[in-house]
Amino acid sequence: MKKQTRRTFMASAAVLTAGVASGMSLTTMETAKGKKQLAHHVFFWLKNRDSKEDLNKLLEGLRTLRKIESVRSLHIGVPASTELRPVVDASYSASELIFFDDVEGQNVYQVHPIHEKFVKEYSHLWEKVVVYDAIGVE
Amino acid sequence: MKKQTRRTFMASAAVLTAGVASGMSLTTMETAKGKKQLAHHVFFWLKNRDSKEDLNKLLEGLRTLRKIESVRSLHIGVPASTELRPVVDASYSASELIFFDDVEGQNVYQVHPIHEKFVKEYSHLWEKVVVYDAIGVE
Repeated sequence: MKKQTRRTFMASAAVLTAGVASGMSLTTMETAKGKKQLAHHVFFWLKNRDSKEDLNKLLEGLRTLRKIESVRSLHIGVPASTELRPVVDASYSASELIFFDDVEGQNVYQVHPIHEKFVKEYSHLWEKVVVYDAIGVE
Repeated sequence: MKKQTRRTFMASAAVLTAGVASGMSLTTMETAKGKKQLAHHVFFWLKNRDSKEDLNKLLEGLRTLRKIESVRSLHIGVPASTELRPVVDASYSASELIFFDDVEGQNVYQVHPIHEKFVKEYSHLWEKVVVYDAIGVE
C-alpha cells in the first residue's frame, strides 16, 4: 500500500468509524455518496406466470448480472405483499434493480458478455419487459 | 457506551476495515445486508409535462419524504439519457425509489404525516402514478 493510498484508506476508515459511532447508518452514508447514481429498474412478466420453476430460472439468470464490473449494487425482487392500492402494479413476475455510477456504467452493462448471455439464455422465459432508467437529481 | 455495545461496535469497525482493505466497496457490503429490503419505486407523470417549475416543485416535495423514520434510503430521479430502446419507458417526469427494511416499513410510511402532507400538497401536479413494490429474494 503506497503512503498516499494508505493515508486515504485510514481517513476513510476514520470517517466510517465516526459515522458508525455517531449512530449514522451505513445506508445513510451510502445514500449520501450515491444520490446521483443511475437506478436501472427492470420488470419482467413471465410467459408462464404461475410457473415457480420458470421464476426460479429467471432469478438464477438475474443473479449472474452481479459480476458485471459497472454494477454497483443489485436488488432482485418479486412483488411485495403491500396493500394493492389502484396505483400499485403487482402484475410483474420479477424485478431487477441495478445502481450504476452514471449513464456510461449502464452502457457498459448493456453490451457486456454476461448481460448478452443472460438475454440469450433467459429471454424465452418472459413475454414482456419494462425498463425505467432514472438518474439521481441530488 | 456499554461494554457489549462497544464490543459489537469494534467488531463492526473491524469488519468494515477488513472490507475496505480488501477492496470490497461499501456498496457491496450494503447490498449484502440489504438484499431482502423492499424497493418501493414510484413513477410520476406531471400534468404539465414541460413545466420545469412543476417538476422542481414535485422534486421539492419528494425530498421531504427522507425524514420518515422507516425510510432507509431515498433516490430521486428523472429519466436518464440512456438509449431509448423499445423496452425503455422514459415518458415519466420523476421517480422516487425508497428502500424499506420490510413491508411493515412501507406500511408505516404510507400513513405517516409527512407522506400524507406530501400527497395533499403535491398531488395536484401529477396526472398518473405507478408504484412497484419489490421485496428482495436473496
